[in-house]
Amino acid sequence: MRLIGKEEIENIAIGAALLGTGGGGDPFVGKMMALQAIEEHGPVQLLDVDEIADDDVIVPSAMMGAPTVMIEKIPSGEEALVAFKALEKVLNKKIKATMPIEAGGVNSLLPLALAASIGLPVVDADGMGRAFPELQMVTFYLNGVSTTPMVLADEKGNNMVLNAIDGKWAEKIARSATMVMGGSIMNAIYPMNGKQVKESAIYRSLTLEENIGRTIKEAKYNKQNPIEEVLKLLGGFTLFTGKVTDIERNTDGGFVRGTAKIEGLGNDKGENCYLEFQNENLIAKTDDQVLCITPDLICVLDTETALPVTTEGLRYGARVTVIGIPADEKWRTEKGIEVAGPRYFGYDHDFTPVENLMKARGK
Amino acid sequence: MRLIGKEEIENIAIGAALLGTGGGGDPFVGKMMALQAIEEHGPVQLLDVDEIADDDVIVPSAMMGAPTVMIEKIPSGEEALVAFKALEKVLNKKIKATMPIEAGGVNSLLPLALAASIGLPVVDADGMGRAFPELQMVTFYLNGVSTTPMVLADEKGNNMVLNAIDGKWAEKIARSATMVMGGSIMNAIYPMNGKQVKESAIYRSLTLEENIGRTIKEAKYNKQNPIEEVLKLLGGFTLFTGKVTDIERNTDGGFVRGTAKIEGLGNDKGENCYLEFQNENLIAKTDDQVLCITPDLICVLDTETALPVTTEGLRYGARVTVIGIPADEKWRTEKGIEVAGPRYFGYDHDFTPVENLMKARGK
Repeated sequence: MRLIGKEEIENIAIGAALLGTGGGGDPFVGKMMALQAIEEHGPVQLLDVDEIADDDVIVPSAMMGAPTVMIEKIPSGEEALVAFKALEKVLNKKIKATMPIEAGGVNSLLPLALAASIGLPVVDADGMGRAFPELQMVTFYLNGVSTTPMVLADEKGNNMVLNAIDGKWAEKIARSATMVMGGSIMNAIYPMNGKQVKESAIYRSLTLEENIGRTIKEAKYNKQNPIEEVLKLLGGFTLFTGKVTDIERNTDGGFVRGTAKIEGLGNDKGENCYLEFQNENLIAKTDDQVLCITPDLICVLDTETALPVTTEGLRYGARVTVIGIPADEKWRTEKGIEVAGPRYFGYDHDFTPVENLMKARGK
Repeated sequence: MRLIGKEEIENIAIGAALLGTGGGGDPFVGKMMALQAIEEHGPVQLLDVDEIADDDVIVPSAMMGAPTVMIEKIPSGEEALVAFKALEKVLNKKIKATMPIEAGGVNSLLPLALAASIGLPVVDADGMGRAFPELQMVTFYLNGVSTTPMVLADEKGNNMVLNAIDGKWAEKIARSATMVMGGSIMNAIYPMNGKQVKESAIYRSLTLEENIGRTIKEAKYNKQNPIEEVLKLLGGFTLFTGKVTDIERNTDGGFVRGTAKIEGLGNDKGENCYLEFQNENLIAKTDDQVLCITPDLICVLDTETALPVTTEGLRYGARVTVIGIPADEKWRTEKGIEVAGPRYFGYDHDFTPVENLMKARGK
């Protein structure tokens, strides 16, 4: 167990933005929530996965909805408390800790803010090791953990306990409820016992996020190239370097969908890179080559500051470096690719690991 | 307490179709469900309101959704059992009896079918004394009874317990969930104690429905005019007699909306009557006069058989008699008219009781 205070939150926010692969909502919002909650209630206990007991009840918490809406409706500890109490009633057990469902943007930091407000510890793990747009796209689901009972709560005081027959129905029903409840809601979801967390979660994601943030900061301080240092830490690749020359996005059915065009600079001069996203970046390609594809991670960094840029934050003229990071092995399985691979999102490509695509590109 | 068997069901179905004022789904479906359940499990206990104790837990049950969809998806006792069990868990109390939320079509008969399947009695009362399209349009709501906790269950096995801040939010969220859950769901809603039922329900609606059915049958047997006999029983009026010459309806947002045009015959020759409906008939008017308007009841009867015709069943060329019936006094209060009066449905009319409109018409 260690304590997460304000400095840790600053670093985690940077790492969360990067692993958020463009989605997950502006981490600035999550950071402010977490900082404020820690200011009011003191630091949060972060538990290592090894520190939880097999029969502890662990309930991940998250916001669901379009990031554009989410940032307008910062959730309070109140909603979380209502949601957790409702779920404890259904489960007839005390909740021991919460944890993030994804390592990305708001949803990495939200559990820390809620945990501070309501006095619960947070488990240092998550269900994606990145961000993904749908509820069933978690390693818990790959392991057969039930998405429900799940509680959805809005800021007005409405809440519901959903019992769905499978993760896809949970996603469908919760998504529609989210829309009618104002576009974004708070979610207590995938209740698990400690054993299930140990079997199915991606370990130490909060610590990894913190390390990403610290690495970028220290590299700048030491006048090293922060992008190179981050790539070393994550085993990632520079996919493309250039300037944003076109950006199209629209909020549709609770998702932000769109594309960005990046004109090459330096090594990549004369080429274009196209990013396609659905909340998160899902494919990066040139005119004739795929560079990286879901479930592998595609992150856009500001070339100068090395800070992650969300799909919301992409601006015409911005100088960016697109990096690719191998997804956790759980995502590279047959089941993982079925749930969150290219074909699920409607791309006519098989999944190819980013390291193989880079070899083929030969740059 | 008395037992409801197959003969009673036949009569109730006719009365339910009439009080359904065109909506509430084809009562034939409800009738078949109830008959089958009674065939399998024996007759249902019908409790008079005076027979329930003040602290008994009573939970009305209903189908929600467009009648056009509802008839394709007959609910099983299974869903009801799941929904009632989920609600008992939330309330932490045994449910003593169920009852209809409305006196109309499927939803009058559904509680009888469910009650037979799961062995609960039914209270002889409802929350509308007619049918209405939205969840908050019940006398329980007029009396301040909370719409939620409510359970929604679909035939696939998905269910949710909704806690909404008010009836309008409950309606909004449940309606959207209904759409995504396949267009029609089973609802356990407005959980009450016996005292609340006594204060807020419309008494003896099932018995009234049965009397309507019996009156029509007996009048035919005795060669009396069944429509006149029913009007005597209900204190109603003949609004218009004619032939359907135009009918427009569309299913939109979970509702069946439309209009029908009836060309006058006999006394009404030379005039036209226009019916407008949203699941239920809401206004009947001629070219220059309103004949009857919500919350008063507008029912279309087959002129020859006196059997009620739903908005779904309206056909070009049908000879029909449109009748108007004063709504229960609970609906004619300021609050009642606010919740289910003309302006709520977007009609630019004040509510005028049907008896006054008939005086003005002077026929």
